Amino acid sequence: MKIGLLGHGVVGSGVTAITDSCARKKVRRLEVTRILVKDESELTDPRCTLNVEEILQDPEIELVAECMGGLEPAHTMVSRALEAGKHVVTSNKKMFANYCEELFGLAQENGVTIRYEASVGGGIPWMSNLTRIKRLESVLSFRGILNGTTNYILTRMEETGRDFEECLAEAQKLGYAEKNPTDDIEGYDVMYKAAITAMKAFNATPALDAIPMYGIANVSSVDLAWAAEKNCSLKLLACGSDDGKSISLWVMPVFLKKEDILANVSGNFNAIECNSETLGKASFIGQGAGSLPTAHAVVQDMLDVYVGQDTALGEMESRTICNDNIHAQFYIRTENREFFRPVTREVLLSGAIITEVMPLSEIDRMIKESEDAALFAAMVYAE
Amino acid sequence: MKIGLLGHGVVGSGVTAITDSCARKKVRRLEVTRILVKDESELTDPRCTLNVEEILQDPEIELVAECMGGLEPAHTMVSRALEAGKHVVTSNKKMFANYCEELFGLAQENGVTIRYEASVGGGIPWMSNLTRIKRLESVLSFRGILNGTTNYILTRMEETGRDFEECLAEAQKLGYAEKNPTDDIEGYDVMYKAAITAMKAFNATPALDAIPMYGIANVSSVDLAWAAEKNCSLKLLACGSDDGKSISLWVMPVFLKKEDILANVSGNFNAIECNSETLGKASFIGQGAGSLPTAHAVVQDMLDVYVGQDTALGEMESRTICNDNIHAQFYIRTENREFFRPVTREVLLSGAIITEVMPLSEIDRMIKESEDAALFAAMVYAE
Repeated sequence: MKIGLLGHGVVGSGVTAITDSCARKKVRRLEVTRILVKDESELTDPRCTLNVEEILQDPEIELVAECMGGLEPAHTMVSRALEAGKHVVTSNKKMFANYCEELFGLAQENGVTIRYEASVGGGIPWMSNLTRIKRLESVLSFRGILNGTTNYILTRMEETGRDFEECLAEAQKLGYAEKNPTDDIEGYDVMYKAAITAMKAFNATPALDAIPMYGIANVSSVDLAWAAEKNCSLKLLACGSDDGKSISLWVMPVFLKKEDILANVSGNFNAIECNSETLGKASFIGQGAGSLPTAHAVVQDMLDVYVGQDTALGEMESRTICNDNIHAQFYIRTENREFFRPVTREVLLSGAIITEVMPLSEIDRMIKESEDAALFAAMVYAE
Repeated sequence: MKIGLLGHGVVGSGVTAITDSCARKKVRRLEVTRILVKDESELTDPRCTLNVEEILQDPEIELVAECMGGLEPAHTMVSRALEAGKHVVTSNKKMFANYCEELFGLAQENGVTIRYEASVGGGIPWMSNLTRIKRLESVLSFRGILNGTTNYILTRMEETGRDFEECLAEAQKLGYAEKNPTDDIEGYDVMYKAAITAMKAFNATPALDAIPMYGIANVSSVDLAWAAEKNCSLKLLACGSDDGKSISLWVMPVFLKKEDILANVSGNFNAIECNSETLGKASFIGQGAGSLPTAHAVVQDMLDVYVGQDTALGEMESRTICNDNIHAQFYIRTENREFFRPVTREVLLSGAIITEVMPLSEIDRMIKESEDAALFAAMVYAE
C-alpha cells in the first residue's frame, strides 16, 4: 500500500523511521512514497516534496498520513485526500476535534476511513481499546491525564517546590514544551483530546466551546504546597461520563489523593481510565507524546487500514454537555475572593478558598462572571 | 455462530449473562446453545447438559468456550473440540500453560484457532494489546501483578498491620480466595500466567518447572513492617525479558518503591507493564478476576473468532530460561540464616537478612539448597 505523508517533523520523521526499518512482513507493505515538507531545508530525502499535489493527485497513493498539526492547511489537505478516495490517518487533535463531523461525512461519502489513534494519548492504544470495549458495551465514564507537558511541569513543581515559570522554562529547554506553550498550559490541547475521546466513547460530537476548560497557566507553588499538606497530587484531568441521557465533559486541574493511580503518573506520561458495565475500571498508561511512541500509533492505524480492521463508529449524535451532576468542592485562588463568599466553606492561610460541595456547572458560571484573569481553579477530588 | 460452553460457574455464568442480554448486533450472533454443567443441581437452564457429547458431537456448534478450570477433564475436552474442527476460547490458565504447544498444534492441524485472553489478567485486554504491539515490534520485557487474591491479602496486611492468616481468612470470606488457596498463595497461578505471557510476548514455550517461583504463603507482618519503613509496598510480581538470545522469567514478591505505579495497584486489581522499542513503556490495569470482567474477555475472544481477527502467533521456539542477568538485592527471612552468611550484607532487627547484589539464579539455587520450608524470600527492587 503506497502512502503519502504530510509533515516530516517530530511525528512524521518517527513514522518513516519505523516504516523504513521495521522487518515485520505486513509493515513492509506500508510504503511511504512521498513526504510533504514545509521548506527547502527539509528536502533531506528523495521522497520529499514541497508540492502537496504530488500526493493528492497520485492515484497510486491509497493512504495519506497527516502529521503536520494545526488547523490549516492540514484540514484542507485531509479533506481533499478523503475526496480523492484516499484513507486518512491523522495525529492532529486540534484539526480533528474541530472538523471530525465533516471529515467522517467525507470519509463515508467516499468509501474510505479516517483513523486518529495518535491524536489522543500518544502511543497509548486508547482508541483501539475503546473500540474493543464498545463492541460489547457502552462506556460509562472516563478520566485521564492527556497532556505530557503540563504533567511534567506539575510533577517538577511537586518534586522541587519551584514555581510554574521556572518549571515551564525547564520543560521548554528539554523539548517537552513548545516556545509558545498556550495550547498546553491553558488546557486547549487536553480539551481537544477530551472531545475526541467523548466522540469515540459516547458517540457524541460536543460543541468545543461548551466544554469547561481550566488549565495550569495560573498555578503557583502555594497550590502545590496545599496539595502536599493534604497528601494529594495536582493533576490536569479530562473527564467525561454518559448517563444515557446527557453527557458530562470537562477539563480542570484536580487534587487527587496519593492512593489514586492517576496521582502516581508522573513526568510526561499520560494515563486514561474508563469504566464500563462488565469490564469495570480499566486503565491505560504510557508515553503521551514523543516521536516514536506517537509514530507507533500512526503506523498501527496504517496497519488497521491495510488489514481492513473494522472501525465502524455507529451513529453520531449531537449531544449537549451538562455538568450539573458533577458535584465537588473547588479550590479557588483569586484576588476577587469576595465574589465567591456565598459558596466559601473555608479560607486557607494562602488566601485561596475551598468552596462547599457544588455543581461544576455552577462554579464554572461564577468563575466566568468573576472576571479575574489570574484566577486558579481546581477540583478537590472526593472519590 | 453456535457456541458450546463448558462450565457454568463464576466465569461461565458471567458469559451467559453477557451473551444473553447484550444488545450489540454482533454479540447477538454469539448463540450459546449448550452448557455443560457438573451435576444435577446446576441444571438451571434448558440449555444445560451433563453430557459433553451433546457439545462435542453437535456439528452446528462452531466454537467451544472452556470455563471449567483445572487440568482434567478440561484438557481432554478442549483437545477433542479442536480435533472436531471447533474453535476454542479458554479462561483456564493452568490447563493452557501446561498444554499450549500441543493445543496450538491441534488447532493448526484442524484449521481452527484457540484464544485465551481471559487466562491472564482477567478483564485486562492484555493478550490483544500484546498482539497489537507485536505487529510492529518485539516485546523486550514485561512485569505485572497477575493475581488478585494475593494482591488483596498483601494490600490488607499493609493497610491493617494484621498477619497473613487473618487477611487470608478475610479474603476467603469475601470470595476473593478459595478454600484451598495453594495455587494462589504459593505462586502457581502467577507462574502459569507468566508462562502464557512469555509465550505470547517472546514466542517462547518455557518449561514450567524452570521458572523460579516464590509465593506469599510464608509472608509475615514483620516483612510488611520493613516495607513501610523503606517506603515500599510488597507485591507479588511476574517478570520476563528477552534480550534476543535468552529469556528471563520469574515469579517472586518484590519490595517496590511507593512512586512505582505497580506499588499503587491495590486490592484485587491486576496490572501489567510492557516495554518495546518504539512504544516504550505501556501499562494496563484492571479487574484481574471476577465473573463479569473475566467473562467480558471470553466474549471478546468469541467476537474475534466470529469476525476472523488475525491471531497468527509466528513460530514458537522452545527457549531456555536464564535468570543469570537479573541482578538485585534479596530479602530473606529464614531460621537457617547461617547458610546465607556468604552473601549477607545486612541483618535486620527482625532477623531477616538483606543480601548483596547477586543474580536471581544464584539466590534461587541457594534457597533450594537451604531447605527451609518456612523461608520467605523477596526481591528488593532497585530500578
